[in-house]
Amino acid sequence: MAEFKHLVIVKFKEGVVVEEMVKGMEKLVAEIDAVKSFEWGEDLEGLENLRQGFTHVFVMTFSKKEDFATFAAHPSHLEFSGPFSAAIEKIVVLDFPSLVVKPLAA
Amino acid sequence: MAEFKHLVIVKFKEGVVVEEMVKGMEKLVAEIDAVKSFEWGEDLEGLENLRQGFTHVFVMTFSKKEDFATFAAHPSHLEFSGPFSAAIEKIVVLDFPSLVVKPLAA
Repeated sequence: MAEFKHLVIVKFKEGVVVEEMVKGMEKLVAEIDAVKSFEWGEDLEGLENLRQGFTHVFVMTFSKKEDFATFAAHPSHLEFSGPFSAAIEKIVVLDFPSLVVKPLAA
Repeated sequence: MAEFKHLVIVKFKEGVVVEEMVKGMEKLVAEIDAVKSFEWGEDLEGLENLRQGFTHVFVMTFSKKEDFATFAAHPSHLEFSGPFSAAIEKIVVLDFPSLVVKPLAA
């Protein structure tokens, strides 16, 4: 079955300490077993016409959609969404079953 | 070393046959060895205030940033970028080293 992914891309407000936000997310995924893996990154290329001001990517992976629903409704997630929402200037969120076309090389 | 990711989120123009775009990308990653893996998905949740009109996610993974540079400069990629650009209404692209916080469970 396809893994289910929760993708968040953001532009943080000026003055936000990104490391604190990441720590909050690390705590979240450590607490909530439904999260299979978590990865994040900061855009390095800076192709401004393509990145549209967004700077950071956060991706959580779940074994199935139901696990994402468990995560989304978890009290720790709801608690974190307050300070996170306050820290962002803009955001796009996409939730999707992930179809892998070229498998990872061994 | 961190894997390097090329993330593309788009809203396609009306009438675009998404399957044809995906086939084009599948062909691309089959042709270009530098691409380690390719996955994609279509947003299912439809939380319009969060997805901002974007509907599809495409992620290519590379072992290192140099492989991404190889891909980006590859003639097949450059050739595909024409019809792809013509098919999209809006796009965000982020290129980043991916930091995995919670490893995949065995």
